[in-house]
Amino acid sequence: MARFSISEGEYKRRIERVRKFLAKRRLDALYLANATSMFYLTGYSFISTERPAALVIPFDGKITFLGPLLEKDHVPLQTTVIEDVRTYLDYPGEKHPIKYFAEFLKDMGLAKKRIGTDSKAGVSGMWGYKGQPLTEGLREATFLDTSELVPSMRLVKSEEETALMRESAKWANLAQTLLQEYVTEGLWDAEVALAATQEASAIMKKTLGPEYIPLRSTYPVNAGFRGQIGEMSAIPHSTATPRTIRKGDVIIGEVAVDMGGYSCELERTMLFGKPTPKQRRYFNVMVEAVEAAFQAFRRGAKCSDIDKATINVFKKAGYAHLVKHHTGHGLGLEGHEPPWLDIGNDEPLRPGMIVSCEPGIYETGFAGFRHSDTVLVTEEGAELLTYYPRDLESLTVS
Amino acid sequence: MARFSISEGEYKRRIERVRKFLAKRRLDALYLANATSMFYLTGYSFISTERPAALVIPFDGKITFLGPLLEKDHVPLQTTVIEDVRTYLDYPGEKHPIKYFAEFLKDMGLAKKRIGTDSKAGVSGMWGYKGQPLTEGLREATFLDTSELVPSMRLVKSEEETALMRESAKWANLAQTLLQEYVTEGLWDAEVALAATQEASAIMKKTLGPEYIPLRSTYPVNAGFRGQIGEMSAIPHSTATPRTIRKGDVIIGEVAVDMGGYSCELERTMLFGKPTPKQRRYFNVMVEAVEAAFQAFRRGAKCSDIDKATINVFKKAGYAHLVKHHTGHGLGLEGHEPPWLDIGNDEPLRPGMIVSCEPGIYETGFAGFRHSDTVLVTEEGAELLTYYPRDLESLTVS
Repeated sequence: MARFSISEGEYKRRIERVRKFLAKRRLDALYLANATSMFYLTGYSFISTERPAALVIPFDGKITFLGPLLEKDHVPLQTTVIEDVRTYLDYPGEKHPIKYFAEFLKDMGLAKKRIGTDSKAGVSGMWGYKGQPLTEGLREATFLDTSELVPSMRLVKSEEETALMRESAKWANLAQTLLQEYVTEGLWDAEVALAATQEASAIMKKTLGPEYIPLRSTYPVNAGFRGQIGEMSAIPHSTATPRTIRKGDVIIGEVAVDMGGYSCELERTMLFGKPTPKQRRYFNVMVEAVEAAFQAFRRGAKCSDIDKATINVFKKAGYAHLVKHHTGHGLGLEGHEPPWLDIGNDEPLRPGMIVSCEPGIYETGFAGFRHSDTVLVTEEGAELLTYYPRDLESLTVS
Repeated sequence: MARFSISEGEYKRRIERVRKFLAKRRLDALYLANATSMFYLTGYSFISTERPAALVIPFDGKITFLGPLLEKDHVPLQTTVIEDVRTYLDYPGEKHPIKYFAEFLKDMGLAKKRIGTDSKAGVSGMWGYKGQPLTEGLREATFLDTSELVPSMRLVKSEEETALMRESAKWANLAQTLLQEYVTEGLWDAEVALAATQEASAIMKKTLGPEYIPLRSTYPVNAGFRGQIGEMSAIPHSTATPRTIRKGDVIIGEVAVDMGGYSCELERTMLFGKPTPKQRRYFNVMVEAVEAAFQAFRRGAKCSDIDKATINVFKKAGYAHLVKHHTGHGLGLEGHEPPWLDIGNDEPLRPGMIVSCEPGIYETGFAGFRHSDTVLVTEEGAELLTYYPRDLESLTVS
């Protein structure tokens, strides 16, 4: 493999799988408007905007990126998988980009062909984009919904993907160490977050050298609290808090690290100062739920089994009413992705899946308690890719 | 107005406009799945995920947020406009959230009513979400596409919005000052970016006090380069660069600042070391294009006129082939939004519109040259909200 990203060979194998799928479904091309799918198949990452962009993989013909002119010279800097780039100047333009796209496809010999796609509109359609569907400019072509193809390929991770997630977890450990080290009375959480993000990013770059760059995030490391300080830690998706950090606060830190476009998830509940009995009780029940979840990753287990295991612990402790979300979700290229460790999802766990394990309890006005680990499903059970300590003593900041 | 955000009164006026629209179209409710639209009407911001979320504004009845349980106690912390919150535990759940949504709407008396919506699916549909369309659970209701309503309300900014953009531009000026100050030979651009982001964010918070928090971004300030260093500055949407900063580099810095969820855009091309004659020539032509654009904001001007003004300057200089994008786009709640300052957009400019003005030229393998300013369209012309110097001397880092 390439040192810090997916190898060219693996991208080519992915394309091969796509072409086998096309053959099986008697399709002449795949047309993708989803940027994550494009990255998964080519390693090409770009800033998604209102400007239409697409990837076309003909069964027989050049893999082609369609997009705005400003991406033209960017493509070959990132990937060798894309063989041709066809562009329009800008959106909306004197001629609408989606009309260009129809012409590009005609020029590729696809005017009357069968095309699998994740978007009949032909675009992701962000930020005030307007336009006719791609299909209107290609009335003699047949479009079929194949939006499940790439997500299904992403569900079980390859060895290369797992290696990247493992490397991501290593640097997440550094960043979480710094987050905890930098917690200081009277500082605003964003200050601590940015100090840890900066320090960990710089060390990571100095250690890994010029070959490493983040592919799908602005910085190598994103470490922070999202405002989960004190009573705001009871809001699982809080985004900011107006007040500074105080002794006595429960603090939830979280880290992501871009490694070849992939990231683990590492979250830790910290106690600032000597824990109160109530903080200690909630914390320890949460850790018990984490342990129960780890045990539940057994041969033959279903996704729902993991969620049930944590719910049982919380029920037994009398804290079922403090649960605000399920136990976890798939990890890899997006913040959340399938499979869902949810009581409603009886899908079997499969070796190679990588998921977050993050049972939590939250009492409004008091605090929230949640660790998140990145777990690789194995034949026999699970391997924990994140390894930062989980116990109260290690997570008490004095 | 509230000091650092849109006032409750303005949110209520926006809701009033929605209800007038509903009356005019004989609609009984508006159902929104777009998170930016929800924020625009209520001031409520949340992390969008695969978990369905929606805002329902009945013509006569309680303004209601539908979403996951983990948002329940978050809503009243951010807004007084939302009067009711209805939740499901999690996605996918034992019962699918979209089925809950159908029931919530029935319970609100909307089962057989006329509902305007921006999404017949009923969801934004991110990150591997799957589900039947909302409309399937409400077969007796009539859904009408009203996806243009909120974007049309956002097009011309109010006085409060303009004041927030003006305040945003002030702190952007500090951040750009720090970016320029911190440019150092041998540092990686992400290090400089994070240092300026941290410093400017901390100063801003200390100056504005506890009333200020970023509403729609992780940090108050986002200052950086996105890898636009040296030859990578020729890639307008570069995302990272493997090498460190060197004397002789052209460097493009950009800043956004969250003020009540709104942000200006400030970008500056800097020269690290004494400019070469070629760098100077490109830089000065770009500044000439900026000036021509500013002059083109005249009473009665169309969006395309601004783009034409910059194209003319580049053509005259013999640089038309170095243009890779149009002159600008609307600003406010999203990275880009309408109106587009594009040769293909003959829409008239209207007082109160706020747009970026960012003509640029790019020579692959050499460098790119682009400033971006935030411009308020006025009755007579334009007012520049960003005021960082634009001339070569001020932007030369020694």
